[in-house]
Amino acid sequence: MGKNLTKRSEDYSKWYNELVVKADLAENSAVRGCMVIKPYGYAIWEKMQAELDRMFKETGHQNAYFPLFVPKHLFEAEEKNAEGFAKECAVVTHYRLKNDPDKPGKLMVDPDAKLEEELVVRPTSEAIIWNTYKNWIQSYRDLPIKVNQWANVVRWEMRTRLFLRTAEFLWQEGHTAHATKDEALEETELMNNIYAEFAENFMAMPVVKGSKTESERFAGALETYCIEALMQDGKALQAGTSHFLGQNFAEAFDVKFATKEGGLEHVWATSWGVSTRLMGALIMTHSDDNGLVLPPNLAPIQVVIVPIYRSEEQLDQISEVANELVKELRAVGVSVKFDNNDNQKPGWKFAQYELQGVPLRLAIGPKDLEKGTVELARRDTLTKEFVNRSEVVEKIKALMTEIQDSLFDKAKQYRNEHITEVDSFDDFKKVLKEKGGFISAHWDGTPETENKIKDLTKATIRCVPFDRKEGAGECVLTGNPSEGRVLFAKAY
Amino acid sequence: MGKNLTKRSEDYSKWYNELVVKADLAENSAVRGCMVIKPYGYAIWEKMQAELDRMFKETGHQNAYFPLFVPKHLFEAEEKNAEGFAKECAVVTHYRLKNDPDKPGKLMVDPDAKLEEELVVRPTSEAIIWNTYKNWIQSYRDLPIKVNQWANVVRWEMRTRLFLRTAEFLWQEGHTAHATKDEALEETELMNNIYAEFAENFMAMPVVKGSKTESERFAGALETYCIEALMQDGKALQAGTSHFLGQNFAEAFDVKFATKEGGLEHVWATSWGVSTRLMGALIMTHSDDNGLVLPPNLAPIQVVIVPIYRSEEQLDQISEVANELVKELRAVGVSVKFDNNDNQKPGWKFAQYELQGVPLRLAIGPKDLEKGTVELARRDTLTKEFVNRSEVVEKIKALMTEIQDSLFDKAKQYRNEHITEVDSFDDFKKVLKEKGGFISAHWDGTPETENKIKDLTKATIRCVPFDRKEGAGECVLTGNPSEGRVLFAKAY
Repeated sequence: MGKNLTKRSEDYSKWYNELVVKADLAENSAVRGCMVIKPYGYAIWEKMQAELDRMFKETGHQNAYFPLFVPKHLFEAEEKNAEGFAKECAVVTHYRLKNDPDKPGKLMVDPDAKLEEELVVRPTSEAIIWNTYKNWIQSYRDLPIKVNQWANVVRWEMRTRLFLRTAEFLWQEGHTAHATKDEALEETELMNNIYAEFAENFMAMPVVKGSKTESERFAGALETYCIEALMQDGKALQAGTSHFLGQNFAEAFDVKFATKEGGLEHVWATSWGVSTRLMGALIMTHSDDNGLVLPPNLAPIQVVIVPIYRSEEQLDQISEVANELVKELRAVGVSVKFDNNDNQKPGWKFAQYELQGVPLRLAIGPKDLEKGTVELARRDTLTKEFVNRSEVVEKIKALMTEIQDSLFDKAKQYRNEHITEVDSFDDFKKVLKEKGGFISAHWDGTPETENKIKDLTKATIRCVPFDRKEGAGECVLTGNPSEGRVLFAKAY
Repeated sequence: MGKNLTKRSEDYSKWYNELVVKADLAENSAVRGCMVIKPYGYAIWEKMQAELDRMFKETGHQNAYFPLFVPKHLFEAEEKNAEGFAKECAVVTHYRLKNDPDKPGKLMVDPDAKLEEELVVRPTSEAIIWNTYKNWIQSYRDLPIKVNQWANVVRWEMRTRLFLRTAEFLWQEGHTAHATKDEALEETELMNNIYAEFAENFMAMPVVKGSKTESERFAGALETYCIEALMQDGKALQAGTSHFLGQNFAEAFDVKFATKEGGLEHVWATSWGVSTRLMGALIMTHSDDNGLVLPPNLAPIQVVIVPIYRSEEQLDQISEVANELVKELRAVGVSVKFDNNDNQKPGWKFAQYELQGVPLRLAIGPKDLEKGTVELARRDTLTKEFVNRSEVVEKIKALMTEIQDSLFDKAKQYRNEHITEVDSFDDFKKVLKEKGGFISAHWDGTPETENKIKDLTKATIRCVPFDRKEGAGECVLTGNPSEGRVLFAKAY
């Protein structure tokens, strides 16, 4: 059927790339490192957006929009942040093209239209937003500010991969301002929890919540909390981050507020974001050699009905049953498509919907009409059964929850089986090589050791889990004292 | 109260700028010509987006996302389009910053990180999208493609105004591909009709549907349909456009399809868009000297309840009534806010919600509790009345429709009174100067006459209305034969 994917066991990376393109999720564009998100992929992203947006608003956040460009003098104001992103900035230097006198029909940058100050295409928006907040904040009465924006950002990455690492990507970035350190820390934790809840309940993707080590922190942050997921190939993926920025940006942009007590203090800040990278995480958590597997909560089409027929008359009879089912399913909130397209054969359609991860497929043929049944196929388990027409709606409603839960359980079991405690560096290397996944090991707390382990094994500290068993131990590399285990892994 | 706006009669332009800023809709940013859309303004835009998105999807369109950047060689492929936008393009030439050796703590563009080919920040996306469609379209089976994207675009305008003309703005751009000319023309008209429906039913803003003259057409289009609205100061505003692109882009990007009959033909195209400019149109259609006036369909808060109290005990009693009202109103789909913020006095709140255009305000004081009434104030008419507590929900439900309709009727009456038929150029100039609005006049159909009138009066042909009375006449400037009247106006 021309849909065959490379097997995961053969070449996981190739499988991923093929799946993204063949399932109509995204493709590379003519612009180096930038992707086109195709309608089917974008529909999944829209479902993610809708749910996250709801969760943000329920917790008192509002959306706004800030400029795409950051003037260089603002970009460089918070030094650590600037240093962290300077190497991957797309820069606008001119504001006009003109006809190329040497090449008829061609254009060239007009040298007379050079900007006085270069504009950085935002890699993240702290600088432009805190420069704005400066005018919004005078007194404690103006706080907190809890704003989010849905936007595109650009980070000029050298090695890119669809969804996982692209020069331009879509994301949301929350930026909040608070009167106290405690309130900002609470917000940082709240948003990390919201990301975890979203990942587990909607993406059916188990995550570990924790904090980043200093060297893995967001440039300009005092603390970075994160959710870390585990992909099927044993590599970790950072799925969302929430940063406690302290007063760094308030100091850089001189944002002070009059306190209730009549003092003048710098404002406390957080920022937090998830991006279209989540699409990559979703794919690599659930999918199989036949293609995408989608949890029902994020599936643009939850049920597809495919008619099996030879004559127009048969199609008419089947359509009657199918259209009724469509109506009944929609009434209970299930999104359903009746694919009566005559240009394609049922076998082609089966393969296509399998590839695209539609959670349930109903097939109805002449025999089903006789018997009053439909054939119901589950995408996640690839199992089929015949169900009585009268029971099918209830059955599907139940399966929506069952599949969602079952995908989560399966991913969680895999993840849990791939957190391995090791106590020697030999075991560390062995587990990393032979089994993969998270390695729970003692670490002496120094960036030097962290770097050495990274150089030796390519594994990084994904996080210090919030729920780690505290307890002294010896560093897996140096034998120096450790306060507790941290999670190492190779990562996307 | 510090909310006083310049009166419209004194300085309309100043009134507009003050309103946008003081009502918390948007403000200028540190980036020349780029605005910050503030949470309250963005909430209105989100309501516009949601409704338009629903209308697009109902008519079979899907969302997708294409890159922000257009490589120069693609940008220049469709020559007319390129020529039309070349003068206002922001251009990315470098992909890295580095430390400035002469200025510690400062950054500079890294000359070693010059792009081989410059990237244009999209002013519109036909080029990048048609270069993509090339790979999506082989046969008639792949058609039609009906895709929309919500995105930011950049056009380097010299004179900018919040919402009306900004260097970066938010919009949606639909891009469709069809097998036949007729189908593409139908799509062009369908989308123009959807814009008109949205403008009239949701924005309560009457529009004239028509087609643009050649000189006002979108660069690269064979036909541009539009909806034209009239602002309170007698100037017209182009609120949405829908373009029939013929085969121009298919030819420029070599996009052909195999027909059912076995031939090979270039694909037919349309594109259509509305932008955050609609926010400006909304403001200048309904608002008054007290601030914003919003039609209920687009108001983020439709009803606000303000308690009037002296003691905590009074507030408790009022809150009980207010919270019940909130529940009842939400149950019937009315969005409502109970503003029990103790930091501000009722008078301040009244002025604030008036400024922000909340359609209905309820005030509840101790006397109302005694009498079982509430005071109901309409933002549009500035009228107040006392309503029995038991009747208030039904009354508000009815008012939501009544206000929506009444705003439309009022705007339509103003618009209709400001379409003036003239038959001499003296009258033309007189009406334009003394009355403003649309001038319905005969025109000889030549760009020369159109330009001459523009030079002499600053009025342009806004459109050739679809519903114009056909009928020969004499051009208002040259006396040459005319096929029918067109609409002139000064425009935003």
